[in-house]
Order: sequence, then C-alpha cells, then structure tokens
Amino acid sequence: MRMVDLIIKKRDGHELSNEEIKFWIDGYVKGEIPDYQSSAMCMAIFFKGMTKREIATLTDYMEHSGEVIDLSAISGIKVDKHSTGGVGDKTSLVLGPMVAAAGGKLAKMSGRGLGHTGGTLDKLESIPHMSIAKTKEEMIDQVNKIGLAIIGQTSSLVPADKKLYALRDVTGTVESIPLIAASVMSKKLASGTDAILLDVTVGEGAFMKNMDSARELARTMVGIGTSLGRDTVAVLSDMSEPLGFAVGNNLEVKEAIASLHGKGPKDLMDLCYTSGSIMLLQAHVCSTLDEAREKLHEVIENGEAFKKLCLMVEAQGGDVSYIKDPDKFEVSKNIIEIRSDFDGYIREINALEIGVSAMKLGAGRETLDDVIDMSAGIVLARKIGAKISKGDLLCTVYTNKSEEEYLPVLEEIKHAYVFTNEEVEILPVIREIIRE
Amino acid sequence: MRMVDLIIKKRDGHELSNEEIKFWIDGYVKGEIPDYQSSAMCMAIFFKGMTKREIATLTDYMEHSGEVIDLSAISGIKVDKHSTGGVGDKTSLVLGPMVAAAGGKLAKMSGRGLGHTGGTLDKLESIPHMSIAKTKEEMIDQVNKIGLAIIGQTSSLVPADKKLYALRDVTGTVESIPLIAASVMSKKLASGTDAILLDVTVGEGAFMKNMDSARELARTMVGIGTSLGRDTVAVLSDMSEPLGFAVGNNLEVKEAIASLHGKGPKDLMDLCYTSGSIMLLQAHVCSTLDEAREKLHEVIENGEAFKKLCLMVEAQGGDVSYIKDPDKFEVSKNIIEIRSDFDGYIREINALEIGVSAMKLGAGRETLDDVIDMSAGIVLARKIGAKISKGDLLCTVYTNKSEEEYLPVLEEIKHAYVFTNEEVEILPVIREIIRE
Repeated sequence: MRMVDLIIKKRDGHELSNEEIKFWIDGYVKGEIPDYQSSAMCMAIFFKGMTKREIATLTDYMEHSGEVIDLSAISGIKVDKHSTGGVGDKTSLVLGPMVAAAGGKLAKMSGRGLGHTGGTLDKLESIPHMSIAKTKEEMIDQVNKIGLAIIGQTSSLVPADKKLYALRDVTGTVESIPLIAASVMSKKLASGTDAILLDVTVGEGAFMKNMDSARELARTMVGIGTSLGRDTVAVLSDMSEPLGFAVGNNLEVKEAIASLHGKGPKDLMDLCYTSGSIMLLQAHVCSTLDEAREKLHEVIENGEAFKKLCLMVEAQGGDVSYIKDPDKFEVSKNIIEIRSDFDGYIREINALEIGVSAMKLGAGRETLDDVIDMSAGIVLARKIGAKISKGDLLCTVYTNKSEEEYLPVLEEIKHAYVFTNEEVEILPVIREIIRE
Repeated sequence: MRMVDLIIKKRDGHELSNEEIKFWIDGYVKGEIPDYQSSAMCMAIFFKGMTKREIATLTDYMEHSGEVIDLSAISGIKVDKHSTGGVGDKTSLVLGPMVAAAGGKLAKMSGRGLGHTGGTLDKLESIPHMSIAKTKEEMIDQVNKIGLAIIGQTSSLVPADKKLYALRDVTGTVESIPLIAASVMSKKLASGTDAILLDVTVGEGAFMKNMDSARELARTMVGIGTSLGRDTVAVLSDMSEPLGFAVGNNLEVKEAIASLHGKGPKDLMDLCYTSGSIMLLQAHVCSTLDEAREKLHEVIENGEAFKKLCLMVEAQGGDVSYIKDPDKFEVSKNIIEIRSDFDGYIREINALEIGVSAMKLGAGRETLDDVIDMSAGIVLARKIGAKISKGDLLCTVYTNKSEEEYLPVLEEIKHAYVFTNEEVEILPVIREIIRE
C-alpha cells in the first residue's frame, strides 16, 4: 500500500477501506507517513468528505492510537458531556455538580481555552490550589466517592489527534466536518465514558456559524458514537450571544456558584436542565425526562448540587472557602462600565467579538504559551432582547491591563452591540436535539 | 503574511495576489515554508484551479527561482520544442536536425524517461560515448557552429520546480493543469529560448487522456508563454497508439535515422513537418507554412537533415559510425515475434500498455535509480487500421531479460491490442493547433 495512492483515491472521491484508513493513521503516528502526505490527505477530505463508515473507522483508529481509559472500576453508567466551545460557556461547572448530585457518575476530561473560547480547566484553576493534574486512579477513586471529577486530558490519550490537529491548524484543514467529528469523538471515546452528551454550539461565537453545519456536525458525531456502541445524543445550543452574563475565568466561576444557588441566568440554566435530563436518562438514573428535570430542580433547591461542587474542589485540593465566599476571588484593578447611547432594544451581542475582547483584556490566550489573567473579563448587564434607555449599563469590563491597552478594546466591545427600535424576539437557547 | 491564510484563501476559491504567490514560492525554495503547507496548497489548487494571471505569476517566480540562461550570444531567434511525453516519441531526434538543417537555431534542454514514457536524453545516450552533460558555454558555441544542441538540464535551473515536482509526485497533486503548465513553462522559459513549440500529446499513452484536458493544458501553457512575452504555439498530437513503430532507446534512434533518410513512419513525419513548419515561422526563417514545409522536405531529400544529426553527435562526442551504420547498435539477446490470432483490422494498440511493457522489458525506469537496457523494447509491425490475417506479425519484442521475466510481459503486449471485423478510420496525428 502506498500513501500517495490513498490520497489520489480520496481526491478522486472514492471511499477508503478500513485497512487504508488504518495504514494512514498507524503510519502517521509512527512517523512512517510524513506530514506532507497527511496534510494533502486532509485537504482532499476537506473537499471530498468521508462516508459514515469511513468517519467511524477513522475515529476508532484515532481512539486506539494511544491509551484508552478503562472506567469499569466505577460502578454504573458513566456519562460525559462535551461542548464544541463558546463564549461564557461555564456549563460543565454547573451541569457536572447537578448531574452528580442527582446520582450520575461524571469522570470528565476537559481542555484549555484558545482564542475567543474559554476552557473549563482554566476556569477551574482560578480557584486557588485547585489541581487538574490527577492520575487515572485518583480520578476513578474520586468519582467512586463523590460522583464527579473534572481533570486534564492525560498526554497518552489519542496521540493521532494531537499530531493531526497540530498539522490541520497550519494547513487550512481545520474546517472539515469529518475531521472535526473524528477529533472530538476519538478523545471522548478514549476517555472511557459509556454515554456522551454533545453540546454543539451554533452562531457567531461558535465553531459552526449556522444551523446547517451545526446539524451536520452533530449528526456526524452522533453517528460515530452510535456506530461505536456508545449512547450519544447532541443538543444544538445558541452561541450568537455569550452564554449567561459572565465571560472570563473567575467571573464565570462566580456565576456558576450563583447558578448552583438557584440564581443562574435563564439561558445557562435551560441548557443545564435540558442537557442534564438527557444525561440522567443516558445514565439510567431516571426513566423519563420529566422525572430527571424534577430531580435536577430538587438538587439545586436543596443545595446538594452546590455541595457537590464544594466536594469536588476539596477532593482536587482547591480552596473551598472561595466557593463558599466568592467575594474572596481576586478582582481586577480596573473596572469600567459601558453604558448605552441608545434608547430601544438590544438586537445583537456578537459572541465572537465579546470573546476576542475578553481575550485581549487578559482572560484568554492568543497562543498556547500565553498566561491567563484569572480576574479579567466582561460581565454583561443585559442580554439580547432587553429594553434599554440611554445611560443604562450594558456591561462591566474587568482588566489589569493599562489604560493604553484596554481603551481600544472598550471600543471593540461597544462594536459587538447592535440596537434596534423594534422589540426583539428572544430565541430559546436549545435549538434542536439530535439522536440517531 | 502567513502561509496558512494563503492556503485557506485558495481553498475557499479566492485569487492569490502576486505578492502572495511570491511569498509561497520564495519561502518554499528557501525552506522557510515546509513541505506540509506546500502540499496542502497544491491540493487546494488541484480543486480550485488558478486564474490566468495567477498561473503566469507562478511560472514567472518559479522560472526566476534559479539560474535563467542567457542565449543572446546565439544570433537569431532561438526556438525550442517541448513534448508532454509519450510512447515511441523520438520527435526531437528527427525534428531537431530537420529544423537546424532548414536554418533554425535549437538549444534544447531535455529530460530523462520515467514510467511508461521515454526521454530524449536516454535515447541519445544509446549512441556510444554521446555526452549530454555540456556547459552553457559549450552549448552556445555548438549552436553557433551547427545550429543544434540537445543536452541535459543543468541542476541550477528552476529549483522551485524540482522541489515542488518531487512533492507533488508523492502527494497526489501531479494532475493539476495550472501546476503542470507552470512546471513545464518555467523550465522552458529558464532555458532562455525566444519561441516555444509545445507538443501536447493526448490519448492513452499521454498525460492528458482526452481532448478537453489536452486543450485546456495547451491553452494554459500558450497563455503563460504569451503573457511572459514568448511566441508560443501548441500542437495537439495523438498518443492513443505509440508514435511511429519503435519503442525503446536504440530502437527509436534507428527509426529516427531511417526517418532522416526519408523512410520515416507517416504519423511521426506528419508531426515533424507540421511542428517544424511552425518552428521555422517562429524563428523568422520562413514566412509561410507552405514555404517552411517545402524547405523541410528538401533537407530530408538532400540529406542535410541527416548530416545535422551526424554533426550534433560528433560535436557531443558520440560515435558517428553508429549513425552511419545503424546495424552496429547493440541488439538484445532475445528477439520474439508476436503474431495475430485474428483476421480483421487492428482497432487499438494501447500506448500506455505498450509503454509499460517496454519498461518491463528493460527499456525504461520504474524509479529514477533504475538502469536502462538500451537495446530493449518493442517494434510494431503494423499500426491502428491495418488489415491483418491470422499469423501476421504484430510486433517484435527485444529484451535481455530471462524467459521467466519476459513471458508475462508478452501476454501484456497482446492485451494492448484490440481487433475488429470492421474497417477502422485512421485519425490524423495532428488533432489541433492552438495559438493565443
């Protein structure tokens, strides 16, 4: 078998056999197939796509290119949740404790933020002394004790994806649905979970800008999971404006804590209740969505969900006093209010522009080497659809950057807003649910 | 400027600016842009094509990536001919002496054969002591004295094409008309010729399998030449069956000698007369095609063309006694006749299969390191359209391989023939002539 023949086969629109996909992935991970052939293959896949069978096979070989975690030492059905990323997306910090408090088992491996999207690991690390570097055994032990752990992905997982993603990033081949789907699903499958709830974000602040592509990605990933024997459901959620109000690491942790105290923003809580209900069904903890939703309301109201977050922080070495008294979190030196020049309604709060602005204020990374300022970010005062008058607060900006640095960013934040004289229809955060 | 952004721009169907193409080619030759980005770019170009301006710019930067030969020390208009390759294509060995004898000036840089196609340099080297490694100065001196030189391309010419072609060869990106056109034309332009006659072969044994793609390639190359200020004409010639009768190095030299003695096969001579006439017009040696054609007939009949071949062989150190007495050429140990099992007409002699068979008999290279057997090959007895009876000779096979090695090849040669009961129309070798 020669790699060049496989590239030509795909380039000409033919289907690759399982052996051919194995030849590519194995050879690439071993260094026998060079980057320049893999990048040409990725570009051919970008143009010609892959069949359902090809994508499932690719995911399977990528999953097995490294360690595959065995979670069988945790009793019951393990459910994991993955979001394709967004701005202000602190869902895992709320949903994880809720599901665990309701009886689910979550052994979650999370990632870091890059560009305009935040990462759950970074948010967790804004809690002093919180450790996300746990061994597999420690994670299993923690989930067995308290039902919940959120840690960093071990470096031995899915080397094929690490190598391929780095290559795609510099060769213009990121935006291929088969390759995105295989990348996400190979990591989820290798982390050993039994069932998967995918949160596929859609809109300006998401990777998928429109419903068609989001739906295609969701269907592709659900297809992979199902064909590889895992119960997989996808929720399509809106990411045209940021999720909730807070964007930035410790700002989002504080919003997550408030949410667990029953004071969460509507969109965030709608997403958590819907996703959480599905996960409790997938975990066989509940038998109907209504029962599951009721249980989730209960654990918010009786404080059990909040307690789970405290237990997880404690188990991972974090300082729980911050969770119990969020005023202890570091606050940025500069706090600037942005107010409306307009009477009317907010029609748009561009999530991408808010995300990029938050990054520039110090809340995110432009490259993986950048250091994050945990207290920086933006807290919205109002969301899309709100009626506003001149002088009303739009958002509050937190930063430790100099005035010279942050002043242009304030202009960019204003630019993210679009106003209108007419009343604006508020769309639900859940746009669609996709099952096999 | 970042290479990844240029790849994405092309991938999404946009036109690259001159600066962007320069950034790619310069960076790639200098090693600043890695192979994996260039291969992704080539695949994007395969799918999205390039505009006329992009192709001319690409060719121009490739041409100037290395040495550009200055032929101004040769008086008059220098004309060069390039064929996109075929089976049994000894045109340069016949056409070169004809045009030079008629008063043209040819300083030709040629290539080696690979796969099923032969190369002029290999054919020339079947003449004992013939040297194709001449300096630029020696070549200019020789053309000034006798009007003709055919030598190997110096290694300092068009490094961008060398690097890019090697990469395309292993990444499934050879078959892109903009990239093929830029590769061919950058080499021709760098070799310093004033006018170019392109022989674009079409059919089974050619790179372009059908008239549409051959026409597109021809138009693209003529467009490049013209926009970079060189008089460029393309002849589309048939390569569904081999050109002439002989396939294999010294077998083709012998056929070329016979052709210069006025005993050439009709298709080969038609191609030489048509191409040669255009070249004499491009060189301003003649003012009408009829005058040029008459002059070419004259130099065949009076032996001047044959004399030019002798002078060139002599000037390049070759043993002229072989040209004067072709029986001196080495003959293969095994000579096998293949005869017809059929009464009727020859409808097809698949040039690709004949070319591959000749290679397997020893006449060609599978990889650039293979050593050629100069005497091996196939000599057709009859061409497409011939009426045949059972037992008639189809072709004669020459090889020094063992019986075990050549027996399966004989079967493949038989397989190249298709017979029919109905009379077959013989198509002219010249299919079309393309000018700007």
